[in-house]
Order: sequence, then C-alpha cells, then structure tokens
Amino acid sequence: MPTNEKARFELLFIGNELLIGKTLNTNSQWLTRVITSLGGVCYRMTVVRDELDEISNAVKEILSRAPRFLIISGGLGPTYDDITLEGLSGAVDKPLVINETALAWVTEKYEELQKRGRITNTEMTPSRVKMAQLPLASKPLYNPVGTAPGVLLEQGKTKIICLPGVPQELEAIFEGSVKTEIVQEIGEYVFLESSFLVKGIGESTLAPLIDEVRARYAPYIYIKSHPRRDQPGVHVEFHLTTSHDVQCYGKGKEFLEEKIRGVQSELEAGVTKLGGETVHPQDAQANRKSRI
Amino acid sequence: MPTNEKARFELLFIGNELLIGKTLNTNSQWLTRVITSLGGVCYRMTVVRDELDEISNAVKEILSRAPRFLIISGGLGPTYDDITLEGLSGAVDKPLVINETALAWVTEKYEELQKRGRITNTEMTPSRVKMAQLPLASKPLYNPVGTAPGVLLEQGKTKIICLPGVPQELEAIFEGSVKTEIVQEIGEYVFLESSFLVKGIGESTLAPLIDEVRARYAPYIYIKSHPRRDQPGVHVEFHLTTSHDVQCYGKGKEFLEEKIRGVQSELEAGVTKLGGETVHPQDAQANRKSRI
Repeated sequence: MPTNEKARFELLFIGNELLIGKTLNTNSQWLTRVITSLGGVCYRMTVVRDELDEISNAVKEILSRAPRFLIISGGLGPTYDDITLEGLSGAVDKPLVINETALAWVTEKYEELQKRGRITNTEMTPSRVKMAQLPLASKPLYNPVGTAPGVLLEQGKTKIICLPGVPQELEAIFEGSVKTEIVQEIGEYVFLESSFLVKGIGESTLAPLIDEVRARYAPYIYIKSHPRRDQPGVHVEFHLTTSHDVQCYGKGKEFLEEKIRGVQSELEAGVTKLGGETVHPQDAQANRKSRI
Repeated sequence: MPTNEKARFELLFIGNELLIGKTLNTNSQWLTRVITSLGGVCYRMTVVRDELDEISNAVKEILSRAPRFLIISGGLGPTYDDITLEGLSGAVDKPLVINETALAWVTEKYEELQKRGRITNTEMTPSRVKMAQLPLASKPLYNPVGTAPGVLLEQGKTKIICLPGVPQELEAIFEGSVKTEIVQEIGEYVFLESSFLVKGIGESTLAPLIDEVRARYAPYIYIKSHPRRDQPGVHVEFHLTTSHDVQCYGKGKEFLEEKIRGVQSELEAGVTKLGGETVHPQDAQANRKSRI
C-alpha cells in the first residue's frame, strides 16, 4: 500500500446499461490500467444507475474517503438521463452554471458538424446547452472526438474528473487533459509487472510456496495467483506487481527490477521442486519489459 | 423502479486484478444480465481490493442499504490473499467455523484430483481447510467445476451469496444453486428489451423526440440512447427495456410487449420525420424475442 496520499484514486461509473448487463465495462479496465502505469492506486470502483440520488450519494460517500482523484465516467451527454453533472452539483453543493468556454466548444462542434453535412440545425437547444452547464468553479476539459466536454472540479482534498462514457471520448480526454494532472501530482513513479503460467500444480499446493516467497520480498512485490480454468488440465497464472515512486526505499527502479526477477526465479525453482512446469516465461518477460 | 423490495440486488467484486486493469470484469456483465432476466434490479456494483478492511467496510455499507440480495464474487480460494470470508465474518460479526458439509466436499475434490493423477497429496493442509471455514450459520453451495464452495448467509434483510471469481465456477454455482433462490424470492417476472440503430442524426437532435415518447410511455418503458463512435458517421443506438412482475398493472406480459412495440414504432416514425434512418430493426426484433 502506498503511503503517498496523492496516489489514491476512486472510480465511479454511471449508467443503467452497466447494471443490466447490456454493456461490458471496458472503460474500467482501460482506466485502471493507465492509472496504475502512472503510479496511481485505485482503491475502489463503484457503478450506479442513472438516478440523481444514487449519483449524489455515491459521490458524497467517495468524497468522505478523501481520495486524491475521483474519476467519474458516463452521463455527460444531451439526453434526459445524462444527469451526472446534476448529481455532482447536488453532492458538492455547487450550482450548475453555464461555463462560457464549454459553451463555445459545444457551439463550435455543432457548427463543424453542420459544415460537414452531418446536421442541418446548429440551434443551441436546451439539450445542447446542458452539456455546457457545469458545477460552479469547474474547469471544462476539451473533447477532441465528441461534443460533451469533460469536467475538472476540486472539492476538499479531491480532484474530481468527469469523462463521457463513450470509450473513444473518455480515452481522448484522458490522454489530452487528465494524464498531465496525474503526473504532476504523483511525480515519477515506476510500475512493474511480470506474469507466467504454472502447469500441473493446483493453487492449494502452491499456497505455502507463495507464503514463503512473499514473506521474503515484502513489502516490495505483490504476488497474486489466478487459477485458469480456460486451459486444459491444472493451470495457475502468477502475476507479480510492484509500484512505487522512483526515490522510494532510496534505491530507484533497478532495485525493484531486481526484486521482481528474484521473486520470479524463486517461484519458478519452487514450482520445479513441486514437480510442476513453468510455461511461457519468455512472453511474460517481453510483457514486463514493455510496461517498464 | 420496482416497488418490489425482493428484487433489489447489489454486487461486490473483490480482487486487485480488477483494480490494476489486469482483468476485464466479465463476471459483472454475466451476473447483471442473468439477474435482470430473472426480474432482479441491480442497484450498485462495488469493486474493492484484497484487503480485510476494504472488504468488511464495503459489506457493512451495502448491508446498511438492505438490498434483498448481495452477490459477492472473488477471494474464496486457498491462497493468502483469498480473504473474502474473513472480511465477511468481520462485517456480520459471525466467527469463521469449519462447515462439515463444505469440508467433506473439499476433501472429496482433492481425492478425485488424486485419482485423476492431477495431484499427489490429498492432505488437508491449512490452505485447503480454509475453503471450508465459513461464517457461522452459512450454507455452503456446491461447486461442480472447482474446489471452493460458494456460500449463502442471511443477515438482516439480506441474502448474502459468495461465489468464486473464476468465471466457470461462478457461473456453475449460480446456475446450480443461486438461480432457484432468486426465482423463489421474486416469482414470475418478465424482462423485455429491444434495440435498434439510428443513422444520420445525433443524440442532441433526438433528445426532444425521446422526451416526448418516454413521457407517453412512462412508467412502463425505459428508453436509453447510446452514441456509437465505433460506426462511421453519426450513429445512435436505442435500447428499450421494461421489467416487471407478470401481474403488475393487472395486465400481464402482453401489455408490456405492446408498449415496447409502441415505443419502437413511435421512435422510428420520429426518426424518419427528422430525416434519419433506422438500421437493423429485424435483428433487434430477433434479439428481443429471444429474451422474452
């Protein structure tokens, strides 16, 4: 666990489609992967329905835990059930007001769409203006691929960031405006991971080996085992991770790289002793290198 | 929103792999889809790390909202970080005790694995016994494809159900033991859905049409629009859903079928009037029929 409070994240996803099984939440995987690679630690994810009370309550509960970042996704569009900003406004007790920058961006988007023959009418209807009504003191975040801007709002110890639920828009705003916010906050971090498959030994047989190795490498390396029922026979996947700021332990990145290599080779030796086989260590190595 | 309190669900997922972006949470889509098709309404999903306090706090918070069902997934295995039952035990203040039925099942599983040449040692080590240590008053749920049993525990107004995170095991226990629990509780429900694509009109232009149609069909049909940036040009997907017990409105399933057809044809007519095009209504129809 990081002692660095600036690395604490929570994520909130808003949308009935996620709660009736219509949509697979790929945004959650994308966001947690990127945040982790930047040195952030996601403590909790919450998914609620498109209902005002549900949204406001969830935001209030999260703010009471005071993460440094709260990333909210979904419900920023023009239709009646896009009510994330209204819910947020209630939770932080800041009224919705037209943000002039956001309004200029949204207006521009519709003029552009008209030029490209996509729409015939650029009138700023209430549905369109709604996307520029942000809680007071918010900063709009430019949306390079869609219409609804993202939103950044500081509340107490937390930077709240709202992103659209459409994956392409979420990713574009994140890359364009959110990444730098996080890097500025967390500084230079290192995240390392490594994974490999073990064949022929079950998790319960591996458990004492894991306990032994992890005790020797605590608190540096986190070892996680996953039974893989999608493979024929008994397979367990090992996944090793570590994440810390470069100055941590006063030893830098090489120190953690060495530790993760140590855990991997001790686990592999233990697996061999138990009569099992280690599969795909090359792939795992390649994967790890690509993430350093 | 259902007035039926017996249809209220919350879901809790436990596992660091979900919070670092290693694993895409397909269990959440599978569970919410099946629960919805049985007439259940999932209000909230929460994802927390493999940490005792995180698990206990999340369980306590969910129980304070008193859903009829709390489905927990992940952390039932034999390794050191499988601590879901310990976290649950703390949250409901019921000690972990060896459940004789669960112990017999787990023992049998290892004997079976030995017979099939998968393991050499059937000794009931602490890691293995752990999977049979359930909070007092729990009922174990048989796992037909893996080792760790599921768990059913009633606490206050809530039926708590714990399932493994491995998808094949989660699905098998759900199909074998959980479905009937839900059907007994909710009774005969109907869930209908229908979806179709609109081409050439953006969401903000469609918003007033949606408002008009939904006002006419409230509270029966829920209309949701999703911008689809994965299609060339402007596309919006409409998704119509309704879910209610068969006796509701005193009119039965045909009544809701008629309503959903009504919404669909009014939206399609509106789209044509606005100069747009409706795509794949046949597929949507087929999809809908398969879910009735």
